[in-house]
Amino acid sequence: MFVSDCLGVNEKGHLTIGEMDTVVLAEQYGTPLYVMDEDEIRKNARAFTSGIEKYYGGKGHVAFACKAFCCKEICRIADSEGLWLDVVSGGETHTALSAGFPVERLIFHGNNKPATELADAIDAGIGRIVVDNIFELELLNQLASAASKRDKVKIQLRIKPGVEAHTHEFITTGQIDSKFGFALETGEAFEAVKKALEQGNIELVGLHCHIGSQIFDVAAFAQAARVMVDFIAKIKNDLGHQIAELNLGGGFGIKYLHEHTPAPYESFMEAVSKVVLEGCRTRGIDVPTIILEPGRSITGPAGITLYTIGALKEIPGVRTYLTVDGGMADNPRYALYQSKYEMLLAGRANAPKTDSYKVAGRCCESGDILGVDVPLPKPKVGEILAVLATGAYNYTMASHYNRLPNPAIVMVKGGKSRVIVRRENYDDLIRNDV
Amino acid sequence: MFVSDCLGVNEKGHLTIGEMDTVVLAEQYGTPLYVMDEDEIRKNARAFTSGIEKYYGGKGHVAFACKAFCCKEICRIADSEGLWLDVVSGGETHTALSAGFPVERLIFHGNNKPATELADAIDAGIGRIVVDNIFELELLNQLASAASKRDKVKIQLRIKPGVEAHTHEFITTGQIDSKFGFALETGEAFEAVKKALEQGNIELVGLHCHIGSQIFDVAAFAQAARVMVDFIAKIKNDLGHQIAELNLGGGFGIKYLHEHTPAPYESFMEAVSKVVLEGCRTRGIDVPTIILEPGRSITGPAGITLYTIGALKEIPGVRTYLTVDGGMADNPRYALYQSKYEMLLAGRANAPKTDSYKVAGRCCESGDILGVDVPLPKPKVGEILAVLATGAYNYTMASHYNRLPNPAIVMVKGGKSRVIVRRENYDDLIRNDV
Repeated sequence: MFVSDCLGVNEKGHLTIGEMDTVVLAEQYGTPLYVMDEDEIRKNARAFTSGIEKYYGGKGHVAFACKAFCCKEICRIADSEGLWLDVVSGGETHTALSAGFPVERLIFHGNNKPATELADAIDAGIGRIVVDNIFELELLNQLASAASKRDKVKIQLRIKPGVEAHTHEFITTGQIDSKFGFALETGEAFEAVKKALEQGNIELVGLHCHIGSQIFDVAAFAQAARVMVDFIAKIKNDLGHQIAELNLGGGFGIKYLHEHTPAPYESFMEAVSKVVLEGCRTRGIDVPTIILEPGRSITGPAGITLYTIGALKEIPGVRTYLTVDGGMADNPRYALYQSKYEMLLAGRANAPKTDSYKVAGRCCESGDILGVDVPLPKPKVGEILAVLATGAYNYTMASHYNRLPNPAIVMVKGGKSRVIVRRENYDDLIRNDV
Repeated sequence: MFVSDCLGVNEKGHLTIGEMDTVVLAEQYGTPLYVMDEDEIRKNARAFTSGIEKYYGGKGHVAFACKAFCCKEICRIADSEGLWLDVVSGGETHTALSAGFPVERLIFHGNNKPATELADAIDAGIGRIVVDNIFELELLNQLASAASKRDKVKIQLRIKPGVEAHTHEFITTGQIDSKFGFALETGEAFEAVKKALEQGNIELVGLHCHIGSQIFDVAAFAQAARVMVDFIAKIKNDLGHQIAELNLGGGFGIKYLHEHTPAPYESFMEAVSKVVLEGCRTRGIDVPTIILEPGRSITGPAGITLYTIGALKEIPGVRTYLTVDGGMADNPRYALYQSKYEMLLAGRANAPKTDSYKVAGRCCESGDILGVDVPLPKPKVGEILAVLATGAYNYTMASHYNRLPNPAIVMVKGGKSRVIVRRENYDDLIRNDV
């Protein structure tokens, strides 16, 4: 009915999330409000873990990419699901550790990790560091030799597999022009592997690749896996080193609009397993532990944003603007990427979408738009607008533009709701002002 | 020599801002770091106030649009220069009042001001409220009648003058499709004036228009002023009401790149004064108090951002990536608008720009780019990259994407530096987490 499974309509005609009435939530907690459904998050996580179980004999890990949605509570949920976490900064690491997340299940990513953050990660005993470039490889080896920890630092190398996926297709050239990773086709990746194996303080345990975002097509993942298995075989043959872990990154697409048709999350693992297991068998190499790094696909469908509708501005012969009490400060994705979202009136969730609106935020900026030509019933001032599938890259990309405080985040589960991130207040905004 | 007057090069070949060595500042305060020059801010503010003095007999106010740069210290500086402030939210208002800024010199803008913020503004005795639409006009009258203050609430009406300015030109149609204001050409604006005059609890003191951003051409402002004076005359003639204030908004362009040629700030007032004074004389109407709302043009040229250069990634035959320790989290303007900036190496400010780089941030996102084909000398890892003219819409648009803490802001003046906004720490990021 809606783009996300966790949404429904109750007997009052109100939109529900996890069986909770969104109109009531808006009243109780105020707007703008992010609402997340815990069961949906867990369900999505389990689709990946069960895919690994079912098709790959359980030899793998799912690392939630918390740049999609990061707060202490999501780290606790990820922990309780047995997930690993993909972190990209000292700030994300701090959030995870503050939530009690086990440091050995953190995978530290980034194209330019500062030396201080690398040193802190080593000292904390971080699970893996995904090395992006030669400069970092050398830096890391130095830092590891100076560190208090005795163990070698476990690394994966980020490889550009030459496969670039777009929503509905993939291409096998061109991805070399990226700020991330070592290029395979130029021989750079192979040289990096050789160099990594020569370092005394680091242990090359895995290879990583990431082929794009919001991908609907399993074939792109299968193709990347094929390329990576070939490379693992080459490393085994030429250098005698068995790569133990194959990290295929994330990028699994979600349904933002009804016309979007992402593959079921399990099916990525089904396609990839076939390629990897068969590739390893025919090449006579050990089957690597597999790692997936879904972010958007775990929390994206689990979130909605609730806004109160303010002024409606009809411009005869042009269009009608519908304004809400949030906007690009809490969801910059239309401004950044012209991303489209399904929207509806929370209090009349089944009402026919008879009209079309340009949905504008409250920021003093023409570009503060949440959607153009959005089908909706004719709204009234004060009604609640629900924007669906906002559980990824909304809160984590939020700004204080126009000094708007970040909204609260409410988690629903089992017919109950709880605040997991408190709404900012005005004093939060000037806390660091001198 | 550089795009901003406050920049120079010292005997070591280091970039200076307000005579302070930027390499030393980076070392002292860490990177990424925003640095602002107080004298440049004051100089730019005075260009506008002196324009009003010189060409308009001093009958006007300059309101700094603090959405361009908002913190307590800028409010104090604006106050000491006798400026007014253009605020767009309860958060900006709170910042200004916390800094001791006089409430009667605040002008409250926005296309969708929440009722609670309007009520707070009325109670606080805010200087002006710029009413955006009929819904707000009615809401405001109700709120004003319920408020504890006895005085009528002073308002300006936001008018779409049908003049839309682009950097180098302007067009006189098309601007009707905007989320802001009342359209002149449809008669909507005139109806709004009539309605405003009928309300018992508000006083229509002025009209406001805003024709765009980053405008280089004074003719666009002159044209907008002409249209507005005509409208003031029509209101006088048809309704017998003299509009006391003409607020021409902001949008004055700044020099981001050497090829940019903004008009001197005084010259906007010179052109506008001629139009308004002559228009009033020939139409027999009183000369209105004029208000300008510069934001970017006051703080933009006064700011720079300092980054430490991390990994350099040369992709043979393609390009070289230069990565820094900040990016779209502290400056999203390339990601949002593909905005271009002048960049240089702070420690070798005069070095010939022999090479070209794609300057990438540290966020785990391909779109985290600060500039493409940026001419620079060949840099070394660890050198300081200075990005110029970042004093507007950088800090105010900053996010915590990838959980990157907001940089500190340092103000320099008279050979001294001081922190005006402290660097965020990791605990700031989880302060509201439950």
